[in-house]
Amino acid sequence: MFGVTILGNNSAIPAFNRHPTAQVVTLNDQLFLLDCGEGTQMQMSRYKIRRSKIHHIFISHLHGDHYFGLIGLLTSMGLMGREQELSIYGPPELADIINLQLKVADTILPFPVAFHTLDKEGVLVDTAKFRVDCFKTIHRIDCWGFIIREKKNPRKIIKEKVLEYDIPAVYYEQLKKGNDYENKQGEIIPNEILTTANKPACSYAYCSDTLYHEGISEKIKNVSLLYHETTYLKDLEEKAKARFHSTTIQAGAIAAKGQVESLLIGHFSSKYEELDSFLTETQTVFSNTAIATEGVTYRIL
Amino acid sequence: MFGVTILGNNSAIPAFNRHPTAQVVTLNDQLFLLDCGEGTQMQMSRYKIRRSKIHHIFISHLHGDHYFGLIGLLTSMGLMGREQELSIYGPPELADIINLQLKVADTILPFPVAFHTLDKEGVLVDTAKFRVDCFKTIHRIDCWGFIIREKKNPRKIIKEKVLEYDIPAVYYEQLKKGNDYENKQGEIIPNEILTTANKPACSYAYCSDTLYHEGISEKIKNVSLLYHETTYLKDLEEKAKARFHSTTIQAGAIAAKGQVESLLIGHFSSKYEELDSFLTETQTVFSNTAIATEGVTYRIL
Repeated sequence: MFGVTILGNNSAIPAFNRHPTAQVVTLNDQLFLLDCGEGTQMQMSRYKIRRSKIHHIFISHLHGDHYFGLIGLLTSMGLMGREQELSIYGPPELADIINLQLKVADTILPFPVAFHTLDKEGVLVDTAKFRVDCFKTIHRIDCWGFIIREKKNPRKIIKEKVLEYDIPAVYYEQLKKGNDYENKQGEIIPNEILTTANKPACSYAYCSDTLYHEGISEKIKNVSLLYHETTYLKDLEEKAKARFHSTTIQAGAIAAKGQVESLLIGHFSSKYEELDSFLTETQTVFSNTAIATEGVTYRIL
Repeated sequence: MFGVTILGNNSAIPAFNRHPTAQVVTLNDQLFLLDCGEGTQMQMSRYKIRRSKIHHIFISHLHGDHYFGLIGLLTSMGLMGREQELSIYGPPELADIINLQLKVADTILPFPVAFHTLDKEGVLVDTAKFRVDCFKTIHRIDCWGFIIREKKNPRKIIKEKVLEYDIPAVYYEQLKKGNDYENKQGEIIPNEILTTANKPACSYAYCSDTLYHEGISEKIKNVSLLYHETTYLKDLEEKAKARFHSTTIQAGAIAAKGQVESLLIGHFSSKYEELDSFLTETQTVFSNTAIATEGVTYRIL
């Protein structure tokens, strides 16, 4: 399972029961939190997100609608007795703010927090199962996007076949990599008999607040699912530019130029109650688009 | 109208759809915000609290469930174009935290904020219509309670009578204070004909997080409505003590000793889903008790 659950899809001021930005990416048994606006911990309870599965939190920038909920989430994790380490990736001042708030409350979290400062584009985490990269967006203050890529073995085991040929489980990893199996009698069982080709690995790019910038299409090139902000409809292109935000048409253009599989749009301005036009406008440029709706999980395929 | 609307009644971890502490006191056309846990701005939208009527915010202490929502509320007030000054009363580090968060966001609020540091017991605000005092509670970190007292003229005008005697409106304030009226003919119209005795002025004491301490009953003596925390039921008195909180029985005892008119209890621990026992236990000590329920406004009489 690879998917993203929307906890908040609104821009700065909460409105029409829409919450500020927060998303949870599920990749098998790992959860990643992308931004953490005010009320994220309540949204997690509402949508039954298992906090203990979160080991990595990524904060795009220090405008409040993207991080004011972080201190509350950390405090609650502590009160609930969390012991596992948590890695937080964000701008350098984030650690100062969190540490000041913990200090004045005379609170020591019962779990280790590793703050990682975002300072250059590139790899943030790289494991056998996934990799996370960051890239710069263009906003009023420093702002980052993130790409989460799953890693997959090229081949998938056919259960009946490995049982039929009596292959010990310790060899499964080799089979997944495409190797043949040699049994005790010296017979070679070709990999093609024991496995099928796996689906290609998928990827999710989270493009937080940004001015329209063509260069971003290169950074998110070919991802399976791109999230791109659309704070305004197309008629407010000038306003979007002045506030370092993007419109529907601009998000669609990035998706098209980046040749992504599909597009998810969000960070809607509080001035809009109805969101239908966001979808129709974006689809004029990039048809495979969906509106980020709170509580909904979008598969990354 | 003098009343208090509960926006959050839960202790540290939000649970069972209960929110962290925040209350709005309405005194005629003034609103006062007492504490501001995470999500307070959303609760204000939900319960139609008019933010523009808030000129004074009081923060009891710097545990997150009492103030993590403040920065979000201030930011949203700014985005909504507020221009009126806002006074914030709280522990000294509160201004540092808020100012740091504004600085990293490169945000300047479009309205003036006056931070008032709580450092000694006594009067915080004193106007013709109301007075607010603070007092110390006993908690793990510095913590304050607040008393809001309305001020009333001793007499109330009888409309038909002032019209009957043709008394100009400019004299009304004198009549309310109990003075007689002398007309152009030199006749004295006695105040008792023109006015009736006003209801006595009422008062609300907000006793935030505290260890049970008999001395608090002196500080909140004779108020109309006392809010006192009851984090735990009576069987957890030891736990309450260890964590600098109070039980039902202890809150009831403070209300009884303080000879208050009525008692409101809240700040319930997240371990309790059902709250009925909080009421029945407290009422064994002080019968005129109500449970602080979110969205409900309690009259201060």
